[in-house]
Amino acid sequence: MPAFLVVGQKVCTDHKFSLNDLTGSTGRLDVLLRCVNSVFMLSNDIRRDVDLYLVLLGEPDPPRAILFRGRELKYLNPDERSTAALVKNALMKEATGDWTQSTPGIYAARRGLAEVLAELEGRRLVYLKEDGSLLSGITMRPDDIFVLGGKEDLSAEHEKTIAARPETLKVSLGPRSLHADHCITIALNALDNMR
Amino acid sequence: MPAFLVVGQKVCTDHKFSLNDLTGSTGRLDVLLRCVNSVFMLSNDIRRDVDLYLVLLGEPDPPRAILFRGRELKYLNPDERSTAALVKNALMKEATGDWTQSTPGIYAARRGLAEVLAELEGRRLVYLKEDGSLLSGITMRPDDIFVLGGKEDLSAEHEKTIAARPETLKVSLGPRSLHADHCITIALNALDNMR
Repeated sequence: MPAFLVVGQKVCTDHKFSLNDLTGSTGRLDVLLRCVNSVFMLSNDIRRDVDLYLVLLGEPDPPRAILFRGRELKYLNPDERSTAALVKNALMKEATGDWTQSTPGIYAARRGLAEVLAELEGRRLVYLKEDGSLLSGITMRPDDIFVLGGKEDLSAEHEKTIAARPETLKVSLGPRSLHADHCITIALNALDNMR
Repeated sequence: MPAFLVVGQKVCTDHKFSLNDLTGSTGRLDVLLRCVNSVFMLSNDIRRDVDLYLVLLGEPDPPRAILFRGRELKYLNPDERSTAALVKNALMKEATGDWTQSTPGIYAARRGLAEVLAELEGRRLVYLKEDGSLLSGITMRPDDIFVLGGKEDLSAEHEKTIAARPETLKVSLGPRSLHADHCITIALNALDNMR
């Protein structure tokens, strides 16, 4: 089962943001909300065979990670505002080293990129980045983990963490620099058509 | 230059909707807002070489069409709420047979699907639908017009209008039934990689 991991370098790490200003007051949580939509939303259905990890590294309480497990997810709608309310719930949970469920299929923990990747050991990373090899030349595996930045690129330190894995591919989706949620849609469509 | 045309069968045709309830009170305008994002949003840029037509057919004042011209667009942000405010502005304009500009690059008129297609004469239609031929087998043209339904499928009457054009292809993007905005992202990526 594939997984996606999106890093929100400046995304806020408490629940005190306004649902009426998701772009201005959240360190661009809106970008990650659109990623949730891209990973799970099918026409009249939810993708059950995929997981999504959001890693939030903004103020005031980093790092926080939120895990969306497709096979358990409930109450997910396609719009940004309602997904933001689910994230708000997850950030209300006390952040510990263990995953704590907030609503069905959504879990929160105090973890950064390295800790999340550590629990996904043994699986290949596909790092989505403009200067990678073209996706069309790659044979994807059904349990690949796709890693990408949200509004900001990954930091040099994160890139080092990723490169240190036994198996990492750097993959580009085309000649234009795309938003994270669009990258996810394209990668999932390629996986769909591979099956 | 390609164009996209998305039909919102039940999307509201006046400006009196709430920005705080885009999913519940608008006949699913939110679906079309995500299409605007998919058509135009690049990472730190806007696609200038594409147009988008939204055809709104819900109550109380159908039909209304809104045209987004990529080369002229200003004030477009990636989030649903701010795009909804632009649509609200466009729907405030008196609806006539001519395109009236509301904000830079955004125009409104009283037009249904047939009238919008009539002004795009001579160009091939690519109708995105689950039971079409696979995209990978198609050679796309740079001036193709991609037609698709928003939340609802096109009506039988609309399908007849489309089929009556001299050149129409019915194209599927893969084995899963996808949201309109995701279809647009995949089609644009295919166009990008064709160039």
